[in-house]
Amino acid sequence: MSARGNLFIVSAPSGAGKSSLISALLKDNPADMQVSVSHTTRQPRPGEVNGQHYHFVAVEEFTQLIEQAAFFEWAQVFGNYYGTSRTVIEHTLAQGIDVFLDIDWQGAQQVKKLMPEAIGIFILPPSRSELERRLTGRGQDSAEVIASRMQQAVSEMSHYNEYDFVIVNDDFDIAINDLISIIASQRLTLASQTLRHSGMLDDLLAQ
Amino acid sequence: MSARGNLFIVSAPSGAGKSSLISALLKDNPADMQVSVSHTTRQPRPGEVNGQHYHFVAVEEFTQLIEQAAFFEWAQVFGNYYGTSRTVIEHTLAQGIDVFLDIDWQGAQQVKKLMPEAIGIFILPPSRSELERRLTGRGQDSAEVIASRMQQAVSEMSHYNEYDFVIVNDDFDIAINDLISIIASQRLTLASQTLRHSGMLDDLLAQ
Repeated sequence: MSARGNLFIVSAPSGAGKSSLISALLKDNPADMQVSVSHTTRQPRPGEVNGQHYHFVAVEEFTQLIEQAAFFEWAQVFGNYYGTSRTVIEHTLAQGIDVFLDIDWQGAQQVKKLMPEAIGIFILPPSRSELERRLTGRGQDSAEVIASRMQQAVSEMSHYNEYDFVIVNDDFDIAINDLISIIASQRLTLASQTLRHSGMLDDLLAQ
Repeated sequence: MSARGNLFIVSAPSGAGKSSLISALLKDNPADMQVSVSHTTRQPRPGEVNGQHYHFVAVEEFTQLIEQAAFFEWAQVFGNYYGTSRTVIEHTLAQGIDVFLDIDWQGAQQVKKLMPEAIGIFILPPSRSELERRLTGRGQDSAEVIASRMQQAVSEMSHYNEYDFVIVNDDFDIAINDLISIIASQRLTLASQTLRHSGMLDDLLAQ
Protein backbone atom coordinates (compact mmCIF):
# COMPACT_ATOMS: atom_id res chain seq x y z
CA MET A 1 0.00 0.00 0.00
CA SER A 2 1.33 3.44 -0.85
CA ALA A 3 1.28 6.26 1.66
CA ARG A 4 -1.59 8.68 1.92
CA GLY A 5 -0.89 12.22 0.77
CA ASN A 6 -0.70 14.99 3.34
CA LEU A 7 -3.12 17.89 3.62
CA PHE A 8 -1.33 21.23 4.00
CA ILE A 9 -3.19 24.33 5.10
CA VAL A 10 -1.37 27.43 3.88
CA SER A 11 -2.33 30.80 5.32
CA ALA A 12 -0.76 34.24 5.20
CA PRO A 13 -1.66 37.90 5.26
CA SER A 14 -2.06 39.60 1.92
CA GLY A 15 1.43 40.77 0.93
CA ALA A 16 3.31 37.73 2.27
CA GLY A 17 3.65 36.13 -1.18
CA LYS A 18 1.57 33.03 -0.53
CA SER A 19 0.07 32.78 -4.02
CA SER A 20 3.46 33.21 -5.70
CA LEU A 21 4.95 30.49 -3.49
CA ILE A 22 2.15 28.02 -4.22
CA SER A 23 2.30 28.81 -7.95
CA ALA A 24 6.07 28.30 -8.02
CA LEU A 25 5.68 25.02 -6.14
CA LEU A 26 3.14 23.65 -8.61
CA LYS A 27 4.37 25.28 -11.81
CA ASP A 28 5.64 22.04 -13.36
CA ASN A 29 2.43 20.19 -12.40
CA PRO A 30 4.07 17.64 -10.13
CA ALA A 31 2.10 14.37 -10.09
CA ASP A 32 2.16 14.19 -6.28
CA MET A 33 0.88 17.67 -5.36
CA GLN A 34 -2.32 19.59 -6.03
CA VAL A 35 -3.92 22.75 -4.81
CA SER A 36 -7.44 22.15 -3.60
CA VAL A 37 -10.10 23.41 -6.01
CA SER A 38 -13.24 24.89 -4.44
CA HIS A 39 -16.83 24.26 -5.50
CA THR A 40 -18.99 27.21 -6.49
CA THR A 41 -22.44 27.86 -7.94
CA ARG A 42 -21.45 31.12 -9.61
CA GLN A 43 -20.99 31.33 -13.38
CA PRO A 44 -17.50 30.78 -14.79
CA ARG A 45 -15.76 33.99 -15.86
CA PRO A 46 -14.02 34.16 -19.24
CA GLY A 47 -10.91 31.97 -19.14
CA GLU A 48 -11.93 30.03 -16.04
CA VAL A 49 -11.71 26.26 -16.46
CA ASN A 50 -14.03 23.84 -14.67
CA GLY A 51 -12.03 21.59 -12.32
CA GLN A 52 -9.03 23.90 -12.44
CA HIS A 53 -10.18 27.28 -11.11
CA TYR A 54 -13.37 25.95 -9.53
CA HIS A 55 -15.69 23.00 -9.67
CA PHE A 56 -18.68 24.81 -11.18
CA VAL A 57 -21.90 23.15 -10.03
CA ALA A 58 -25.62 23.91 -10.00
CA VAL A 59 -27.31 25.09 -6.82
CA GLU A 60 -29.19 21.78 -6.48
CA GLU A 61 -25.95 19.81 -6.57
CA PHE A 62 -24.31 22.16 -4.07
CA THR A 63 -27.16 21.89 -1.58
CA GLN A 64 -27.11 18.10 -1.96
CA LEU A 65 -23.39 18.14 -1.14
CA ILE A 66 -24.14 20.23 1.95
CA GLU A 67 -26.71 17.65 3.04
CA GLN A 68 -24.16 14.88 2.46
CA ALA A 69 -21.71 16.78 4.72
CA ALA A 70 -19.27 16.77 1.82
CA PHE A 71 -17.77 20.17 2.72
CA PHE A 72 -15.07 21.12 5.21
CA GLU A 73 -16.55 24.60 5.05
CA TRP A 74 -18.99 26.42 2.84
CA ALA A 75 -20.41 29.92 2.61
CA GLN A 76 -22.88 31.94 0.60
CA VAL A 77 -21.41 35.17 -0.78
CA PHE A 78 -23.46 37.60 -2.89
CA GLY A 79 -26.00 34.86 -3.53
CA ASN A 80 -23.45 32.27 -4.70
CA TYR A 81 -22.29 29.25 -2.78
CA TYR A 82 -18.59 28.47 -2.25
CA GLY A 83 -17.25 25.36 -0.51
CA THR A 84 -14.18 23.21 0.10
CA SER A 85 -15.03 19.60 -0.59
CA ARG A 86 -13.76 17.19 2.01
CA THR A 87 -14.82 14.30 -0.25
CA VAL A 88 -12.67 15.46 -3.18
CA ILE A 89 -9.70 16.11 -0.88
CA GLU A 90 -9.98 12.70 0.81
CA HIS A 91 -10.11 11.04 -2.62
CA THR A 92 -6.97 12.91 -3.73
CA LEU A 93 -5.08 12.14 -0.50
CA ALA A 94 -5.98 8.45 -0.86
CA GLN A 95 -4.10 8.43 -4.17
CA GLY A 96 -0.92 9.52 -2.36
CA ILE A 97 -1.20 13.11 -3.61
CA ASP A 98 -0.44 16.02 -1.26
CA VAL A 99 -3.16 18.67 -1.25
CA PHE A 100 -2.70 22.38 -0.51
CA LEU A 101 -5.54 24.38 0.96
CA ASP A 102 -5.10 28.11 0.47
CA ILE A 103 -7.39 29.47 3.21
CA ASP A 104 -7.45 32.02 6.03
CA TRP A 105 -7.15 31.35 9.76
CA GLN A 106 -10.89 30.81 10.17
CA GLY A 107 -10.98 28.15 7.45
CA ALA A 108 -7.81 26.66 8.92
CA GLN A 109 -9.41 26.28 12.34
CA GLN A 110 -12.43 24.58 10.77
CA VAL A 111 -10.31 22.12 8.77
CA LYS A 112 -8.04 21.36 11.75
CA LYS A 113 -11.10 20.54 13.82
CA LEU A 114 -12.35 18.06 11.21
CA MET A 115 -8.93 16.70 10.21
CA PRO A 116 -6.40 17.20 13.02
CA GLU A 117 -3.60 15.57 11.01
CA ALA A 118 -3.68 18.46 8.49
CA ILE A 119 -0.38 20.35 8.59
CA GLY A 120 -0.60 24.11 8.99
CA ILE A 121 1.96 26.40 7.36
CA PHE A 122 1.88 30.15 7.97
CA ILE A 123 3.79 32.51 5.70
CA LEU A 124 5.01 35.82 7.09
CA PRO A 125 6.54 38.88 5.42
CA PRO A 126 10.06 39.71 6.65
CA SER A 127 9.22 43.03 8.34
CA ARG A 128 6.53 45.58 8.95
CA SER A 129 8.12 48.08 6.59
CA GLU A 130 8.38 45.52 3.78
CA LEU A 131 4.75 44.50 4.32
CA GLU A 132 3.70 48.17 4.15
CA ARG A 133 5.68 48.58 0.94
CA ARG A 134 4.00 45.49 -0.57
CA LEU A 135 0.52 46.63 0.50
CA THR A 136 1.00 50.17 -0.78
CA GLY A 137 0.98 48.89 -4.34
CA ARG A 138 1.62 51.39 -7.08
CA GLY A 139 0.91 54.43 -4.94
CA GLN A 140 -2.63 54.86 -6.28
CA ASP A 141 -4.48 54.06 -3.07
CA SER A 142 -5.41 56.41 -0.24
CA ALA A 143 -3.75 56.25 3.15
CA GLU A 144 -7.04 54.95 4.61
CA VAL A 145 -7.21 52.05 2.17
CA ILE A 146 -3.59 51.09 2.91
CA ALA A 147 -4.16 51.40 6.68
CA SER A 148 -7.19 49.13 6.39
CA ARG A 149 -5.19 46.52 4.44
CA MET A 150 -2.48 46.71 7.07
CA GLN A 151 -4.97 46.22 9.87
CA GLN A 152 -6.41 43.17 8.11
CA ALA A 153 -2.90 41.76 7.62
CA VAL A 154 -2.06 42.22 11.31
CA SER A 155 -5.32 40.52 12.24
CA GLU A 156 -4.52 37.50 10.04
CA MET A 157 -0.92 37.35 11.31
CA SER A 158 -2.07 37.32 14.93
CA HIS A 159 -3.05 33.66 14.28
CA TYR A 160 0.41 32.52 13.10
CA ASN A 161 0.86 30.57 16.33
CA GLU A 162 -2.02 28.21 15.45
CA TYR A 163 0.12 26.65 12.68
CA ASP A 164 2.71 23.86 12.78
CA PHE A 165 5.32 25.58 10.63
CA VAL A 166 6.23 29.20 9.92
CA ILE A 167 8.02 30.44 6.79
CA VAL A 168 9.40 33.96 6.59
CA ASN A 169 9.26 35.07 2.96
CA ASP A 170 12.23 37.41 2.77
CA ASP A 171 14.24 35.80 -0.05
CA PHE A 172 11.79 34.03 -2.40
CA ASP A 173 14.17 31.18 -3.30
CA ILE A 174 14.83 30.42 0.36
CA ALA A 175 11.11 30.53 1.13
CA ILE A 176 10.29 28.08 -1.65
CA ASN A 177 13.04 25.77 -0.43
CA ASP A 178 11.61 26.00 3.08
CA LEU A 179 8.21 25.00 1.74
CA ILE A 180 9.71 22.08 -0.20
CA SER A 181 11.60 20.91 2.92
CA ILE A 182 8.43 20.87 4.99
CA ILE A 183 6.55 18.89 2.33
CA ALA A 184 9.43 16.43 1.91
CA SER A 185 9.88 15.92 5.64
CA GLN A 186 6.21 15.12 6.12
CA ARG A 187 6.61 12.22 3.69
CA LEU A 188 9.40 10.87 5.90
CA THR A 189 7.50 10.67 9.17
CA LEU A 190 7.24 7.27 10.83
CA ALA A 191 3.52 7.00 10.02
CA SER A 192 3.98 7.89 6.36
CA GLN A 193 6.99 5.67 5.79
CA THR A 194 5.46 2.72 7.62
CA LEU A 195 2.53 2.79 5.18
CA ARG A 196 4.68 3.45 2.11
CA HIS A 197 7.18 0.68 2.84
CA SER A 198 5.05 -1.90 4.63
CA GLY A 199 6.08 -4.72 2.30
CA MET A 200 9.75 -3.82 2.51
CA LEU A 201 9.56 -3.62 6.30
CA ASP A 202 8.05 -7.10 6.55
CA ASP A 203 10.91 -8.38 4.41
CA LEU A 204 13.59 -6.54 6.40
CA LEU A 205 12.29 -7.56 9.81
CA ALA A 206 11.68 -11.26 9.13
CA GLN A 207 13.64 -13.39 11.58
CA MET B 1 17.24 35.69 20.80
CA SER B 2 18.23 33.13 18.22
CA ALA B 3 16.65 29.70 18.10
CA ARG B 4 18.09 26.75 19.95
CA GLY B 5 19.66 24.03 17.84
CA ASN B 6 17.90 20.70 17.53
CA LEU B 7 19.23 17.39 18.82
CA PHE B 8 18.94 14.60 16.25
CA ILE B 9 19.36 10.98 17.24
CA VAL B 10 20.44 8.95 14.22
CA SER B 11 20.27 5.15 14.41
CA ALA B 12 20.55 2.39 11.84
CA PRO B 13 21.65 -1.19 11.47
CA SER B 14 25.17 -1.74 10.24
CA GLY B 15 24.96 -1.71 6.44
CA ALA B 16 22.36 1.06 6.15
CA GLY B 17 24.96 3.72 5.33
CA LYS B 18 24.49 5.89 8.40
CA SER B 19 28.14 6.90 8.76
CA SER B 20 28.42 7.84 5.09
CA LEU B 21 25.26 9.95 5.31
CA ILE B 22 26.45 11.82 8.40
CA SER B 23 29.91 12.35 6.87
CA ALA B 24 28.40 13.69 3.66
CA LEU B 25 26.14 15.99 5.64
CA LEU B 26 29.02 17.49 7.61
CA LYS B 27 31.78 17.31 5.00
CA ASP B 28 31.95 21.08 4.46
CA ASN B 29 31.92 21.75 8.21
CA PRO B 30 28.66 23.72 8.30
CA ALA B 31 28.70 26.26 11.14
CA ASP B 32 25.24 25.21 12.32
CA MET B 33 25.67 21.42 12.58
CA GLN B 34 27.94 19.16 14.61
CA VAL B 35 28.16 15.49 15.38
CA SER B 36 28.32 14.84 19.09
CA VAL B 37 31.79 13.85 20.32
CA SER B 38 31.92 11.27 23.11
CA HIS B 39 34.12 11.37 26.20
CA THR B 40 36.48 8.48 26.86
CA THR B 41 39.24 7.55 29.27
CA ARG B 42 41.07 5.31 26.80
CA GLN B 43 44.34 6.44 25.21
CA PRO B 44 44.14 8.21 21.83
CA ARG B 45 45.13 6.00 18.90
CA PRO B 46 47.53 7.32 16.26
CA GLY B 47 45.77 10.03 14.24
CA GLU B 48 42.95 10.58 16.73
CA VAL B 49 42.43 14.23 17.64
CA ASN B 50 41.16 15.36 21.03
CA GLY B 51 37.81 17.10 20.72
CA GLN B 52 37.26 15.71 17.24
CA HIS B 53 37.25 11.91 17.55
CA TYR B 54 36.77 11.90 21.33
CA HIS B 55 37.14 14.13 24.32
CA PHE B 56 40.04 12.27 25.95
CA VAL B 57 39.89 12.71 29.71
CA ALA B 58 41.46 11.13 32.81
CA VAL B 59 39.51 8.63 34.89
CA GLU B 60 39.23 11.14 37.76
CA GLU B 61 37.63 13.72 35.50
CA PHE B 62 35.26 11.13 34.03
CA THR B 63 34.05 9.92 37.40
CA GLN B 64 33.56 13.54 38.51
CA LEU B 65 31.40 14.08 35.41
CA ILE B 66 29.37 10.99 36.34
CA GLU B 67 28.82 12.43 39.82
CA GLN B 68 27.75 15.75 38.27
CA ALA B 69 25.19 13.84 36.14
CA ALA B 70 26.84 15.33 33.06
CA PHE B 71 26.20 12.26 30.89
CA PHE B 72 23.14 11.20 28.93
CA GLU B 73 24.61 7.72 29.06
CA TRP B 74 27.93 6.19 29.96
CA ALA B 75 29.45 2.73 30.01
CA GLN B 76 32.65 0.97 30.92
CA VAL B 77 34.03 -1.22 28.13
CA PHE B 78 37.24 -3.25 28.52
CA GLY B 79 38.19 -1.11 31.51
CA ASN B 80 37.70 2.22 29.72
CA TYR B 81 34.86 4.67 30.25
CA TYR B 82 32.79 6.06 27.38
CA GLY B 83 30.04 8.65 27.74
CA THR B 84 27.83 11.14 25.90
CA SER B 85 27.98 14.49 27.63
CA ARG B 86 24.65 16.15 28.08
CA THR B 87 26.41 19.29 29.28
CA VAL B 88 28.47 19.67 26.09
CA ILE B 89 25.40 18.99 23.93
CA GLU B 90 23.25 21.51 25.81
CA HIS B 91 25.99 24.12 25.42
CA THR B 92 26.17 23.48 21.67
CA LEU B 93 22.39 23.56 21.21
CA ALA B 94 22.24 26.85 23.12
CA GLN B 95 24.47 28.39 20.42
CA GLY B 96 21.85 27.51 17.79
CA ILE B 97 23.87 24.57 16.48
CA ASP B 98 22.14 21.30 15.56
CA VAL B 99 23.77 18.25 17.14
CA PHE B 100 23.76 14.71 15.73
CA LEU B 101 23.98 11.75 18.06
CA ASP B 102 25.09 8.59 16.29
CA ILE B 103 23.81 5.94 18.72
CA ASP B 104 21.88 2.66 18.80
CA TRP B 105 18.27 2.12 19.90
CA GLN B 106 19.23 1.63 23.54
CA GLY B 107 21.11 4.94 23.66
CA ALA B 108 18.24 6.55 21.77
CA GLN B 109 15.71 5.42 24.36
CA GLN B 110 17.90 6.81 27.13
CA VAL B 111 18.32 10.20 25.44
CA LYS B 112 14.62 10.44 24.56
CA LYS B 113 13.77 9.82 28.20
CA LEU B 114 16.03 12.67 29.33
CA MET B 115 15.31 15.03 26.41
CA PRO B 116 11.92 14.22 24.84
CA GLU B 117 12.29 17.02 22.26
CA ALA B 118 15.20 15.15 20.63
CA ILE B 119 14.26 14.14 17.10
CA GLY B 120 14.83 10.49 16.18
CA ILE B 121 15.81 9.50 12.64
CA PHE B 122 16.12 5.84 11.67
CA ILE B 123 17.95 4.84 8.49
CA LEU B 124 16.97 1.62 6.73
CA PRO B 125 18.55 -0.28 3.86
CA PRO B 126 16.26 -0.66 0.81
CA SER B 127 15.82 -4.46 0.97
CA ARG B 128 16.88 -7.60 2.72
CA SER B 129 18.94 -8.77 -0.24
CA GLU B 130 20.77 -5.43 -0.49
CA LEU B 131 21.47 -5.50 3.26
CA GLU B 132 22.85 -9.04 2.94
CA ARG B 133 25.05 -7.91 0.07
CA ARG B 134 26.36 -4.97 2.11
CA LEU B 135 27.00 -7.16 5.17
CA THR B 136 28.75 -9.89 3.19
CA GLY B 137 31.65 -7.55 2.53
CA ARG B 138 34.42 -8.79 0.28
CA GLY B 139 33.46 -12.44 0.60
CA GLN B 140 36.12 -13.18 3.20
CA ASP B 141 33.79 -13.93 6.11
CA SER B 142 32.16 -17.22 7.03
CA ALA B 143 28.43 -17.82 6.63
CA GLU B 144 28.13 -17.86 10.45
CA VAL B 145 29.73 -14.41 10.80
CA ILE B 146 27.43 -12.98 8.12
CA ALA B 147 24.34 -14.60 9.68
CA SER B 148 25.28 -13.12 13.05
CA ARG B 149 25.67 -9.63 11.52
CA MET B 150 22.30 -10.05 9.83
CA GLN B 151 20.66 -11.08 13.09
CA GLN B 152 22.10 -8.02 14.84
CA ALA B 153 20.87 -5.78 12.01
CA VAL B 154 17.35 -7.22 12.25
CA SER B 155 17.40 -6.70 16.02
CA GLU B 156 18.39 -3.03 15.61
CA MET B 157 15.83 -2.49 12.82
CA SER B 158 13.02 -3.90 14.97
CA HIS B 159 13.17 -0.56 16.84
CA TYR B 160 12.63 1.66 13.77
CA ASN B 161 9.12 2.49 15.00
CA GLU B 162 10.50 4.30 18.07
CA TYR B 163 11.80 7.12 15.82
CA ASP B 164 10.11 10.23 14.44
CA PHE B 165 11.41 9.95 10.89
CA VAL B 166 12.49 7.07 8.68
CA ILE B 167 14.88 7.34 5.73
CA VAL B 168 15.30 4.49 3.26
CA ASN B 169 18.85 4.62 1.93
CA ASP B 170 18.40 3.20 -1.57
CA ASP B 171 19.77 6.06 -3.68
CA PHE B 172 22.43 7.89 -1.63
CA ASP B 173 21.68 11.34 -3.10
CA ILE B 174 17.98 10.99 -2.32
CA ALA B 175 18.76 9.80 1.21
CA ILE B 176 21.03 12.78 1.89
CA ASN B 177 18.35 15.12 0.55
CA ASP B 178 15.82 13.44 2.84
CA LEU B 179 18.12 14.03 5.79
CA ILE B 180 18.62 17.68 4.82
CA SER B 181 14.84 18.16 4.46
CA ILE B 182 14.20 16.81 7.94
CA ILE B 183 16.86 19.08 9.45
CA ALA B 184 15.59 22.13 7.55
CA SER B 185 11.95 21.47 8.45
CA GLN B 186 12.76 21.23 12.14
CA ARG B 187 14.13 24.79 11.98
CA LEU B 188 10.77 25.92 10.61
CA THR B 189 8.54 24.61 13.38
CA LEU B 190 6.39 27.13 15.21
CA ALA B 191 8.50 26.81 18.38
CA SER B 192 11.78 27.29 16.56
CA GLN B 193 10.63 30.20 14.41
CA THR B 194 8.91 31.96 17.32
CA LEU B 195 12.23 32.04 19.17
CA ARG B 196 14.31 32.93 16.10
CA HIS B 197 12.06 35.79 14.97
CA SER B 198 10.70 37.08 18.27
CA GLY B 199 11.75 40.68 17.55
CA MET B 200 10.34 40.62 14.05
CA LEU B 201 7.07 39.12 15.30
CA ASP B 202 6.66 41.92 17.88
CA ASP B 203 7.19 44.42 15.07
CA LEU B 204 4.77 42.69 12.67
CA LEU B 205 2.00 42.19 15.20
CA ALA B 206 2.01 45.67 16.76
CA GLN B 207 -1.43 47.28 16.44
